[in-house]
Amino acid sequence: EKMGTPSWKVWVGLQEAKTAKFWKAVSSELIATAILMIVQCSVPLKWPGNNDSGTTVQIALGMGFVVMCLIEGFGHFSGAQVNPTVTLAMFVARKLSIVKAILFILAQCMGSLLGSGLVYVVTPANATGTFATTVVNPLMTPAQGMVVEMYLSFMLVFVIFGATDSVKKITMPSLVIGLAVAMNICTGINHTGASMNPARSLGPAVYVNIWENHWVRLPLRPQVSL
Amino acid sequence: EKMGTPSWKVWVGLQEAKTAKFWKAVSSELIATAILMIVQCSVPLKWPGNNDSGTTVQIALGMGFVVMCLIEGFGHFSGAQVNPTVTLAMFVARKLSIVKAILFILAQCMGSLLGSGLVYVVTPANATGTFATTVVNPLMTPAQGMVVEMYLSFMLVFVIFGATDSVKKITMPSLVIGLAVAMNICTGINHTGASMNPARSLGPAVYVNIWENHWVRLPLRPQVSL
Amino acid sequence: EKMGTPSWKVWVGLQEAKTAKFWKAVSSELIATAILMIVQCSVPLKWPGNNDSGTTVQIALGMGFVVMCLIEGFGHFSGAQVNPTVTLAMFVARKLSIVKAILFILAQCMGSLLGSGLVYVVTPANATGTFATTVVNPLMTPAQGMVVEMYLSFMLVFVIFGATDSVKKITMPSLVIGLAVAMNICTGINHTGASMNPARSLGPAVYVNIWENHWVRLPLRPQVSL
Amino acid sequence: EKMGTPSWKVWVGLQEAKTAKFWKAVSSELIATAILMIVQCSVPLKWPGNNDSGTTVQIALGMGFVVMCLIEGFGHFSGAQVNPTVTLAMFVARKLSIVKAILFILAQCMGSLLGSGLVYVVTPANATGTFATTVVNPLMTPAQGMVVEMYLSFMLVFVIFGATDSVKKITMPSLVIGLAVAMNICTGINHTGASMNPARSLGPAVYVNIWENHWVRLPLRPQVSL
Repeated sequence: EKMGTPSWKVWVGLQEAKTAKFWKAVSSELIATAILMIVQCSVPLKWPGNNDSGTTVQIALGMGFVVMCLIEGFGHFSGAQVNPTVTLAMFVARKLSIVKAILFILAQCMGSLLGSGLVYVVTPANATGTFATTVVNPLMTPAQGMVVEMYLSFMLVFVIFGATDSVKKITMPSLVIGLAVAMNICTGINHTGASMNPARSLGPAVYVNIWENHWVRLPLRPQVSL
Repeated sequence: EKMGTPSWKVWVGLQEAKTAKFWKAVSSELIATAILMIVQCSVPLKWPGNNDSGTTVQIALGMGFVVMCLIEGFGHFSGAQVNPTVTLAMFVARKLSIVKAILFILAQCMGSLLGSGLVYVVTPANATGTFATTVVNPLMTPAQGMVVEMYLSFMLVFVIFGATDSVKKITMPSLVIGLAVAMNICTGINHTGASMNPARSLGPAVYVNIWENHWVRLPLRPQVSL
Repeated sequence: EKMGTPSWKVWVGLQEAKTAKFWKAVSSELIATAILMIVQCSVPLKWPGNNDSGTTVQIALGMGFVVMCLIEGFGHFSGAQVNPTVTLAMFVARKLSIVKAILFILAQCMGSLLGSGLVYVVTPANATGTFATTVVNPLMTPAQGMVVEMYLSFMLVFVIFGATDSVKKITMPSLVIGLAVAMNICTGINHTGASMNPARSLGPAVYVNIWENHWVRLPLRPQVSL
Repeated sequence: EKMGTPSWKVWVGLQEAKTAKFWKAVSSELIATAILMIVQCSVPLKWPGNNDSGTTVQIALGMGFVVMCLIEGFGHFSGAQVNPTVTLAMFVARKLSIVKAILFILAQCMGSLLGSGLVYVVTPANATGTFATTVVNPLMTPAQGMVVEMYLSFMLVFVIFGATDSVKKITMPSLVIGLAVAMNICTGINHTGASMNPARSLGPAVYVNIWENHWVRLPLRPQVSL
């Protein structure tokens, strides 16, 4: 971007990190991920005596619409990636410096803890349940769960890259990406909880201390023999 | 706006109040809020013998779509704010004179009473129930409820300001704001009824006389020790 | 439109009725209303042993999306009014000649009979039930039902005029009108079946011979003492 | 397209088949249909102990949104037809050479087997059930089922041709086509499973070996006496 700067310096991004715009972007990721998690931790709650709470369609639409809102509200600051997998993909595609990528991921994890924590303190204990943690369905093997999460992450990143393509210039990228999240939740919620997002899975896991098969949602998954 | 008028006079807005356009805008808020309340009081009704009435998704989509329709239908008259919290935020952002803000809020309260009343007279007594009143979930403390309502109001105002930003010029602001309302209902309906709107809470409360913890939905909430 | 033609002749529209374009438009209303009714008669069916069939959200989205599709598919032929109330409103607003309005309404009624009939012959008897007929909820008085239907018809016409305003030029009128239909169904389905459309109510009533309080859905309702 | 080439050669399309672009398009159909089937086989699964899995609205929105995503993601490679009926209609409309049409249909069938297979291996046996196979409702005759499938296929093709019309240039064709798929599922899911797509019906049928009345979904249906 900056003329005269060697390309490897741009790739590292230390110079960029001295600007106010850079830290605005990092803060934007933190706040946007916190909002994502406020919705994420609220929509699936099963309230005592209310069979209609936490239905799949409520979760899918709530999450799809919040992603759309975050892109409209925070997109011009940081892209509203709110997801380490997306940030990693953007980094690989050379749309992000390494310093920015690392700080975005840290901000996303902190935002997740913040947003989940806020919902945790306002939710009564008997409605908390497993609190939006994403566990592989007990009827499935962890390897099966990993395949599902890999597919869902791929689809999300694929749609994001397609919808934000500067050549195609589609009309409402925020709506398309939001509805893609809703689609992925309709697809995989019963298999793995349809996380697609390691930061999203982090927050709830910390508060209710459920870590079962958590690794299947990491973008760089270990090659384990099951 | 008007050249030659001192800025404090524009801020007060008495001059503006002498125009027909001004009173058209006030009437527009009254009618739009009445329509909002007709939908709001109808969608959550639980009809005897029909388990499928008043589901969360029905409420969320009904309210999201009516907000979209009101913005398309009344937006060019008054902005279709239909919400004292939004009007207050617009006033703070200097997009509204003080006289206009006060009359908008009065019109919204009157509209709420009108719309709720219309639904009240056409709804059979055994389907009325708590009639769309917004009460803090009995499993929660009022303070928890207030945190939820403050978050929901913040998100709504945040999306409205983002979607109507004259620089970004997004494609369908009415759709984005409508779906943000649907998202907020998916998020907070079981916590507090997801009011986000003191005028919206006023109407139903008057007809069925339920005022429990009503203050948590006021935009300027008292600092009480609980 | 045609220069040199006296305005009353345009208003009557006999000259227009000699063109192929005119009859294309009339046919378009017939086919579009038939498609509307195919969806309308299918979505609310309660299938034996399937509690999830005919839910409110399924009906609302099915009908909202079909109206959007019809406007995209038939809008340039005839406006895809598919509703005598809309045609009457368009006639009053001088957007339609009297001959065209009458033939549109006849075509809509024939289309309703055709579409409903098609669904009737492919639906098993024990899933037919009251077959999408719109009756006022037995808990309500007919006068209450009429108020609800008048409000729903008003909202529909109001959104149609707003969304197709040639000055505002909104981005996706078909989507806005479709979602307004979905909103109206979420609002009034338990009160009156949310007809909004006399042609829509005609077809099913003929096949299962249910005419109870049918008159509340006519655009020109008789002034009866109840 | 290519100047100097006789039109019948363009219609056959052998020359086109020597280009990289051609094979990219064929691969695009294979991958896009595989993704379609991953969603199609996942959304209707009934999980033990979860009454809220596989609801009609979840299926309709999941499938509608995936079609929108596929058009945005693969549309510029091959049109994202993902459906032999659509490919056949495009061929009849002279928008496709015969060689391309045949290879597209083969690719769609292979994609269907691939996508369905992927879901089959990650889904526990007691959640598989009839695995998204499309059978005519046992309360209906096969002839009735065929009428429903013919109507649904017609509507889909009609909306696709309308939404991609180069004269009308509508704003978001992907959204309109996606919501048309959702509409068709709301309409016909209880009659026939709302296949609209022979390739879509092929994959699941292979894995669970259910072929009952499969022929009603073929675009060229045999004239049988029932």
